[in-house]
Amino acid sequence: MSPAPERGFPDAEFAARTARAQALMAQQGLEGLLLTRESEVRYFSGFHTLFWQSPTRPWFLFVPVEGKPVAVIPEIGAALMRQTWIDDIRTWSAPSPADDGLSLLVDLLGPLAARGASIGVPKGHETSLRMPLGDYERLLGLLAGLDIRDSTDIIRALRMVKSEAEIAKLRHICGIGSASFAALPEIVHEGQAFEDTFRAFRRKALELGADDVPYLVGGADKGGYHDVISPPTARPLQKGDIMMLDTGATWDGYFCDFDRNFAIGRADDASRRAYHTLWRATEAGLAAARPGARCADLFHVMQSVIDRMDDQGGDVGRLGHGLGMQLTEWPSLAAFDNTALQENMVLTLEPSLSYGDGRIMVHEENIVLRADGAELLTTRAVPELPVI
Amino acid sequence: MSPAPERGFPDAEFAARTARAQALMAQQGLEGLLLTRESEVRYFSGFHTLFWQSPTRPWFLFVPVEGKPVAVIPEIGAALMRQTWIDDIRTWSAPSPADDGLSLLVDLLGPLAARGASIGVPKGHETSLRMPLGDYERLLGLLAGLDIRDSTDIIRALRMVKSEAEIAKLRHICGIGSASFAALPEIVHEGQAFEDTFRAFRRKALELGADDVPYLVGGADKGGYHDVISPPTARPLQKGDIMMLDTGATWDGYFCDFDRNFAIGRADDASRRAYHTLWRATEAGLAAARPGARCADLFHVMQSVIDRMDDQGGDVGRLGHGLGMQLTEWPSLAAFDNTALQENMVLTLEPSLSYGDGRIMVHEENIVLRADGAELLTTRAVPELPVI
Repeated sequence: MSPAPERGFPDAEFAARTARAQALMAQQGLEGLLLTRESEVRYFSGFHTLFWQSPTRPWFLFVPVEGKPVAVIPEIGAALMRQTWIDDIRTWSAPSPADDGLSLLVDLLGPLAARGASIGVPKGHETSLRMPLGDYERLLGLLAGLDIRDSTDIIRALRMVKSEAEIAKLRHICGIGSASFAALPEIVHEGQAFEDTFRAFRRKALELGADDVPYLVGGADKGGYHDVISPPTARPLQKGDIMMLDTGATWDGYFCDFDRNFAIGRADDASRRAYHTLWRATEAGLAAARPGARCADLFHVMQSVIDRMDDQGGDVGRLGHGLGMQLTEWPSLAAFDNTALQENMVLTLEPSLSYGDGRIMVHEENIVLRADGAELLTTRAVPELPVI
Repeated sequence: MSPAPERGFPDAEFAARTARAQALMAQQGLEGLLLTRESEVRYFSGFHTLFWQSPTRPWFLFVPVEGKPVAVIPEIGAALMRQTWIDDIRTWSAPSPADDGLSLLVDLLGPLAARGASIGVPKGHETSLRMPLGDYERLLGLLAGLDIRDSTDIIRALRMVKSEAEIAKLRHICGIGSASFAALPEIVHEGQAFEDTFRAFRRKALELGADDVPYLVGGADKGGYHDVISPPTARPLQKGDIMMLDTGATWDGYFCDFDRNFAIGRADDASRRAYHTLWRATEAGLAAARPGARCADLFHVMQSVIDRMDDQGGDVGRLGHGLGMQLTEWPSLAAFDNTALQENMVLTLEPSLSYGDGRIMVHEENIVLRADGAELLTTRAVPELPVI
């Protein structure tokens, strides 16, 4: 693993993100973006805290079409927000169910509403509004005249393409994830309760420098697993099990998201074949991933390899996705997504297939798209199913 | 620590939760509740997965006024949902931005809309709608005639009072958290980068049986910390630092949420005094916490102790809150919350104060309310600031 990059970003990075958003806003006649979600508030401000785990308090960032973003946040976050590049920080004593930031938002946005201005709120695919729906409905009433449009396209366009500083963080956490998987044979053994395998993996990733392992799912069962999103049980690992761990570990707020498959003791033929098919599907994806190709193309390239073996059409919905401040981000490597791939997108390639009696297998690698093609951020999985 | 309780819940627990919700719905003339958030979907179904970390796919659970809940979910969750007590599971191939569950929701709710029925959606304090806002707006159009009311009160009333099975899980994770804090003097030392203190704490909690440590914040600074929600820096712990760690560790989907304060090497007088004041405020809270008292009463009891020392009115908004499947839940120990305390509520007592030059200190314990008063779930903090 390479040494850790710097934490945080220089102010210039936030200024550049803001300027890009403002250029798109200006094109669309928007006078600002109202943001409520952790990833978007952090993207434009640098405000980084696990406190979002508490659903109690709403947080708002308004990105105007000119000038710096304005934070409208609970007082408990003021000290941390003052460490960012944001100057205009307006706080209230939260929680305050009778007025959780609404008066402050009306102060800020009332003048825009009075002249019938347009602002954007992300309302589209993969977004959500992180504030009570009732408060949003009240706000619409208090800001009658304000034209609120869906601004998902602006946020999506910016966040899909990563800066070199973001890529450095992603490379670092992918390296930690890869080293953690490389250490698995030392920490996993037949007879181990699968929930203890999870604990051992988390502890190893932390030891190797991960800040956290917010996401860890997997499966283990005789001759293949049946489900890829379950929490682990106390069932001991047994000879002949196929085990998969899929991790989203974080460093400085950026995720890796990839998995590895192992056979415990010995590997059955069907699982070996499934593994190698997925490995080849990933190879095909790696070869096809270049700027200008479309997400749907990349999907079909991988799917055509899988189709030669998969007879049941296991449905995980897509074969990869964007990666960054969230475990999954835009775009989707799916038939419905015609987004053109761009340099410096960070993606997962995640082919999966069904085989045998309802078994499923998933592979995953993380890449950054460069001008000449895919650069792996993860240490490439071996071509044949490894046996522990 | 006591041995781990059983994972999961018997079907009877979900049936009882559903029946209680249905009784409240019937009183209010509601024909169902539409739920979108992890905690509420899990509360009524038992569907438990970290996959919610991916914001890509919406998940829906409809709790009708009679009969079992109906799951409308991405196909990727079908296998796991079939392991729960839910029978009616309707899936689609997600993500599918053109129709991410909306057609299935229209099939389900269309007949209710046609006769102008009323259903509930949580829209109030501490809730949010976990689906794209644009899709919700489309759904309202597709279900014209459906009367959608805020059902926060129903969800809140149910979730605030815990079953004995829930309390057993909460006691278990509070025990793991307490044991982790007890081990701190062995894993923390002067000169340690504070981010490594965080890693060491997480690893210890996992070693002692936590499933995960999704929340860990803290502060450390000469003579007192200034902020209680920041991620850690690489600054080494120094003699004279006051250090606080606040953790939300989980076991089987239930959280502890408490903190501990330590002095590194030596403790200054002001911090000692702040510590003991908060310890006494917690004692006052413990004595006053009994069924029938109001949240606001408990707040004032603790605040009156704090007021004797706090000259700056540090504003974290409240002095405790509910605890369960989320790090913070209803109710709030705050002047605005007149909720009457009930037996089997699980709460945090979290007095805080400002002192000196912008320093802040926070204490926290977790309790369950019994008929005769507070039962501690955490091992009570010592009365005087401990020195490592």
